[in-house]
Amino acid sequence: MSYDADNIFARILRGELPCERVHEDDLTVVIMDIMPRTDGHVLVLPKEPARTILDASPEALAACLASLQKVGRALMTAFAADGLTVQQFNEAAGGQEVFHLHFHLLPRHAGVGTRRPGTMADPGVLKDHAGRIRAALAAQD
Amino acid sequence: MSYDADNIFARILRGELPCERVHEDDLTVVIMDIMPRTDGHVLVLPKEPARTILDASPEALAACLASLQKVGRALMTAFAADGLTVQQFNEAAGGQEVFHLHFHLLPRHAGVGTRRPGTMADPGVLKDHAGRIRAALAAQD
Repeated sequence: MSYDADNIFARILRGELPCERVHEDDLTVVIMDIMPRTDGHVLVLPKEPARTILDASPEALAACLASLQKVGRALMTAFAADGLTVQQFNEAAGGQEVFHLHFHLLPRHAGVGTRRPGTMADPGVLKDHAGRIRAALAAQD
Repeated sequence: MSYDADNIFARILRGELPCERVHEDDLTVVIMDIMPRTDGHVLVLPKEPARTILDASPEALAACLASLQKVGRALMTAFAADGLTVQQFNEAAGGQEVFHLHFHLLPRHAGVGTRRPGTMADPGVLKDHAGRIRAALAAQD
């Protein structure tokens, strides 16, 4: 399947749509999911135009995992989390809704499930959570 | 949290417990999940003793993703899959049950959900599915 350069994440990466960005480096961006399944739910995106995990370059995948690990550690601190769940969906049958490769990263707490999909976060809450993650990242350096 | 060297995957990696192995390289092993959520459900393991994605080395993570991509392409062919779902659980609160880092990789078909957790596969079926994956990997070379 080919890459649609007008998918939502491509437009976010080009700055055409807003997002709450918590991390950026040469190869990746990490943003808040606007329909968070748990508090602190973020998405790790490669900058390269990969549709799925099967067509990403080895460099992009390694960079995504490095960002996932770095931000994952920040999530554990920022949300006093007990665990992390990583999900990555490929093609509609695999659960993908936006056709630019992304990794979901969800802080988890013992005995607390995930929210039902599709509920938009309050923008103020999202901004507060993004601030907490940025602070935890800054404290790593 | 520390690494328990007697977890089931550590014992499989040491050859103390059997498994259906479909791929192995210097840094990773890919085995059939004995409680598959879909046909062809495999697990990608780093050989290094990492408990979660947060304490794995960058080299192990890059190698896991390379194996995941290689075997993922084979799964698409071997099961004529429409998609792939990747899941990776960290700590019990994150869904982890065996405390050696692993990535779940599930071939998916349009309109078909996943099986309920905890059902053991028939060993003959698992062997047949592993054979299909090995054949698809051999055809890549």
